[in-house]
Amino acid sequence: MQQQAFPRYVLLLSLFVAFANCDLRNNEIDRCHLDDSVRRAIRSHKDVVDRIVSATIDGPFKGSTYNNLSLLVDKFGSRYTGSQNLNDAIDYMIDLGRKQNLESYGEEFLAPYWIRGNESASLIKPVRLDLPMLGLGSSVSTPTEGIVAEAIVVSSFEELDAIGPLAKGKIVVFNQDFVSYPATAKYRSSSADHASAHGAVATLIRSITPFSMRTPHTGSQFYSGKYKKIPTASITVEDAKMLDRRYKRGEKLIIHVKMESKSLTTTTRNTLMNLKGHTYPEKLVMISGHLDCWDVTVGAMDDGAAAVMSWNALAILNALNLRPKRTLRAVLWSGEEQGLIGARAYANSHREDDLTFVMESDEGTFEPIGLEYKGPDTGACILQEILSLFEELNATKLVRSNDVGSDIAVLTSRGIPGASLYNKNERYFWYHHTNADTLDIEDPDVLDKNTALWASVGYIIANLNVDMPKK
Amino acid sequence: MQQQAFPRYVLLLSLFVAFANCDLRNNEIDRCHLDDSVRRAIRSHKDVVDRIVSATIDGPFKGSTYNNLSLLVDKFGSRYTGSQNLNDAIDYMIDLGRKQNLESYGEEFLAPYWIRGNESASLIKPVRLDLPMLGLGSSVSTPTEGIVAEAIVVSSFEELDAIGPLAKGKIVVFNQDFVSYPATAKYRSSSADHASAHGAVATLIRSITPFSMRTPHTGSQFYSGKYKKIPTASITVEDAKMLDRRYKRGEKLIIHVKMESKSLTTTTRNTLMNLKGHTYPEKLVMISGHLDCWDVTVGAMDDGAAAVMSWNALAILNALNLRPKRTLRAVLWSGEEQGLIGARAYANSHREDDLTFVMESDEGTFEPIGLEYKGPDTGACILQEILSLFEELNATKLVRSNDVGSDIAVLTSRGIPGASLYNKNERYFWYHHTNADTLDIEDPDVLDKNTALWASVGYIIANLNVDMPKK
Repeated sequence: MQQQAFPRYVLLLSLFVAFANCDLRNNEIDRCHLDDSVRRAIRSHKDVVDRIVSATIDGPFKGSTYNNLSLLVDKFGSRYTGSQNLNDAIDYMIDLGRKQNLESYGEEFLAPYWIRGNESASLIKPVRLDLPMLGLGSSVSTPTEGIVAEAIVVSSFEELDAIGPLAKGKIVVFNQDFVSYPATAKYRSSSADHASAHGAVATLIRSITPFSMRTPHTGSQFYSGKYKKIPTASITVEDAKMLDRRYKRGEKLIIHVKMESKSLTTTTRNTLMNLKGHTYPEKLVMISGHLDCWDVTVGAMDDGAAAVMSWNALAILNALNLRPKRTLRAVLWSGEEQGLIGARAYANSHREDDLTFVMESDEGTFEPIGLEYKGPDTGACILQEILSLFEELNATKLVRSNDVGSDIAVLTSRGIPGASLYNKNERYFWYHHTNADTLDIEDPDVLDKNTALWASVGYIIANLNVDMPKK
Repeated sequence: MQQQAFPRYVLLLSLFVAFANCDLRNNEIDRCHLDDSVRRAIRSHKDVVDRIVSATIDGPFKGSTYNNLSLLVDKFGSRYTGSQNLNDAIDYMIDLGRKQNLESYGEEFLAPYWIRGNESASLIKPVRLDLPMLGLGSSVSTPTEGIVAEAIVVSSFEELDAIGPLAKGKIVVFNQDFVSYPATAKYRSSSADHASAHGAVATLIRSITPFSMRTPHTGSQFYSGKYKKIPTASITVEDAKMLDRRYKRGEKLIIHVKMESKSLTTTTRNTLMNLKGHTYPEKLVMISGHLDCWDVTVGAMDDGAAAVMSWNALAILNALNLRPKRTLRAVLWSGEEQGLIGARAYANSHREDDLTFVMESDEGTFEPIGLEYKGPDTGACILQEILSLFEELNATKLVRSNDVGSDIAVLTSRGIPGASLYNKNERYFWYHHTNADTLDIEDPDVLDKNTALWASVGYIIANLNVDMPKK
């Protein structure tokens, strides 16, 4: 997952409100007064749900999401926007969709293509130590010989601002505590800008994670354009704390940072697959995940599993001859990690009127709990009623959220209601944007449950007698 | 921690019996019939225990183990046997002991000095992938250009033996499941020998851990001398499983392994500190941990914390003017990771008769539970009575074990009773022998509790009216 990058206020807003879920309170449900015909229409899908769940967790599709994810990550490795791997993976997924008789195609768009190149960071004084690091997406490079400079260590933007002039000519190390992803990721996305404002020459940020095994986490960062662009990278939690200890003891720290990054532009594609609606084919319900990932990982968790799950949901429905009233569209986004580039391109080239509901899974595919929802109250009542069909999966919980998914935030910010997978993702940020994001995080049986939920909810919403209400 | 390397039957025995603890059953305690004078002597130490605990967890020594560990790991980094860092760290600890008025000195011995050099492993076909790896201690190098060979993947020695001739000329990848450290570490210690017996050219073993963040774990391995010595290294759990998936799909795997390791011999020292006994100064009770660690880690958990804790236990007793009847000796072992070399040298150059009890902490210094004990029944009764004084620390549990500690196994195998710290170390092997073994694993307050326990138990045993019974 990645937060929105532009416009800037949206990024900041999403950082503050994200994960600020609130359970749908009982009194809200009581106030639902769902139209009887809608309630009956939802409940009439119980048999369909049972068919989908049974086919997916015990039947012919058992293990199919995991197995296809396994083939995807082993075949293509990192599917980084701009890479041949991603292009090949897109072709492969389109082909897979067609083999399942789904209308499948790519939609091109322009995206940033940031090439990491060789990179390193070392403590030079008072002792020599390699600092495992990862440059942050869109960072400028250092000069060829790197930057050697004295380092200062701060724990927040406020602390940096307080010592302002001290940062001039220095490498600023941010040793911020992890509070939550949205509250802490700002140190990744804008430490370079903040430090450059004080004349710093580079920044190294403590990786954004609540747990570390000396693992650096990459991610995107953005320059506002107001200050000189300076190189920025993440180091491990352990090393940020070690530098902080030394700095507090009064040791003079000299650090050498070297980055050979390049920023180019590329053409890539979103991957679309349609299960055509039989009554309102022009109306769309979307299920999605992003196919792209960072260059240092195979992105099984972020977000290959959801991309494969979205394809598979359509494939399973099609195989079961379940065709809804509206068209159910799976979108496998690209350019997500660079700032939801694929979603912006989609939003700019498609009519919003046709889109009745959007779903994305991009916060893990661990044990399912239910859905997070953003939209009008009546929609919450509809979803709550739908989720009551998923007791077998233990996935009946609806929470309201101002931040459902990453790519689809572009669409929900335009008033389209949406939902994301709500799951037991306490360990999500342990692996996020690291080379440890591998297939091993995923569980075949749990992926089956998520797939069954994804397919069923998508189908029901696309098949209802009413559109999901918009604002 | 490291298991015993020579003689070979001892290694195998220790692998099978290690961790095979059994709680001291109530009926055993009932059968104790401790001599009343011994029981009274133990109980008379309650005030002393309270003084030590209070001074260590609330008083002037609060945080002292953590702070000194922090200085040690930051100042010297990896304290690898044979390295200048370890020599400097030994000098530093001897000096620290002397500053606390403890008789402190080093005892030299010869040890293997294995130099890692540059090393790498990559999958070459069917796709190119770097495989994070760590050569295993004492492994021979590859030729300069490395070894490029087809790989086969097995999950056990039995599976390898069953396909015997297939291994000829191949790199054998061991993808053994983690069962427990003692049951699984044999794949690290002797996969090269096993595979060489079938004509393999190198082995790569799945790291010995129940949890991985794509982290390779190093460790020692041994050649029996019966077969050609072939290079051997560990890869990550994730990559071992990935290679296994590919192999099972019928993909032909070509791997390139390159290692520039060298085996030399070095002189190093055990570090000894004595708190002289006032009545039987020639009789010894030992508390210990090993100061050395692997070259890829600062070894805060394995085993810097215990080395510092053993020094600090003596320093605290001395500062509190607590001098026991027998001499209490802290030993900070070296050469542990190469096969308990320092402990063997000690055993060969000291009179066993003088040694009445040995303690080592080398399985983590997490929240304390009590002690693991190896020795006669009466000793168990004495220890159980002593541990009853530690309710405040929640560390009253005694378990019997055939494997208490690593270095002191050399001494307990010669009939000297011994104990090791029993603690909540479920995550110990997550970090074991990796670059993620850093200060961050340790908790200042928990280290205080362990230090108080360590100092108190050591003091009481050294101050009892009877020697701990030997077999």
